[in-house]
Amino acid sequence: MRVVVPFGGDSPKTRLAPFFDADERRDFALAMLRDVLDAVESTGNDPVVLTDRPVDVHVPTILDDRPLTDAVNDQLGGDDPIAVVMADLALATPASLTRLFEMEGDVVAAPGLGGGTNALVVRTPEFVVDYHGASIADHREIADDIGVSFVEIDSMRLAVDIDEPSDLVEILLHGRGRTREWLDELGVTLDTTDGRAEVVCHRR
Amino acid sequence: MRVVVPFGGDSPKTRLAPFFDADERRDFALAMLRDVLDAVESTGNDPVVLTDRPVDVHVPTILDDRPLTDAVNDQLGGDDPIAVVMADLALATPASLTRLFEMEGDVVAAPGLGGGTNALVVRTPEFVVDYHGASIADHREIADDIGVSFVEIDSMRLAVDIDEPSDLVEILLHGRGRTREWLDELGVTLDTTDGRAEVVCHRR
Repeated sequence: MRVVVPFGGDSPKTRLAPFFDADERRDFALAMLRDVLDAVESTGNDPVVLTDRPVDVHVPTILDDRPLTDAVNDQLGGDDPIAVVMADLALATPASLTRLFEMEGDVVAAPGLGGGTNALVVRTPEFVVDYHGASIADHREIADDIGVSFVEIDSMRLAVDIDEPSDLVEILLHGRGRTREWLDELGVTLDTTDGRAEVVCHRR
Repeated sequence: MRVVVPFGGDSPKTRLAPFFDADERRDFALAMLRDVLDAVESTGNDPVVLTDRPVDVHVPTILDDRPLTDAVNDQLGGDDPIAVVMADLALATPASLTRLFEMEGDVVAAPGLGGGTNALVVRTPEFVVDYHGASIADHREIADDIGVSFVEIDSMRLAVDIDEPSDLVEILLHGRGRTREWLDELGVTLDTTDGRAEVVCHRR
């Protein structure tokens, strides 16, 4: 199955600014993207990066600088099943993605924390995406309106996307690959001295 | 299987103070507890509430006012498998709990966001808990030290515990039962006008 991985290459991950400068955030986003591509490839499927600017990866890329919703909808509508997996799912593993890809349903979705839609499998040409707002609820409605089944996977690894400093806790607790190594190299560690897990960056 | 549900009845959920007063927080915690008990019973297992003060539920209770770790460890150590499921897992469903209870492993854990351990199945008498700090990492280590297997379930429904106002978003998006009704009655709704899902309480 073709697996589209949207990637915003232009000033990504701005909410991590308290921890990383613009170049670092770009490096970090790229580390996550590459880990996601590896995880997708390990499931035996074919990732392609949908990006708004050229990006150095070892898989095919599609350049499209329109907003996310428009760019993804342009990839949908064909007869073959297709998946959309966000590039910042740093906890995604081959096992969690395999579970997603193998779930039955016209549309299978991985809800993100806070109402996003972190991943989709689309097996019907009529379905369209709308990533604005609480998109998981919108996607449920869109499927309902066109009369196709909508199934949600219960996965923490696919629910966590990395946007804010507090999300880095999850990578330090459960992550691996380039993303984890990148954080380790920058001296980002877990601090549990006050009884709750927080992230600290020893460099700053 | 016996399923211990620890419940802190004394001033629960203080981090929800921006939304609810003390009486409301107690009501809300009780609604979540009862939903969790129902979900556990639906799996065919036997819940018992481990609480620091008398609580009005339809299942057996054990009164123990020691700290969580001590009170839970007092329940472990027997020959029969036992589970520990936190009372604030408002998204837990019979399906997610069944998946947890049926997973193989000497110790099976549901990691909570931020490093907690939201649920455990313990099939070995030597295992003990330690809920302080990033307990999921500590529990991994404890299992490793005594040479038993430690398996983690990948479940968003078991990863989300309800502590802060932002957690309420998940109930409004994915919850049901008494907890959801309680929020609806208090006028707590989702606001997505700025493109992200936030919770607002129309009463205040």
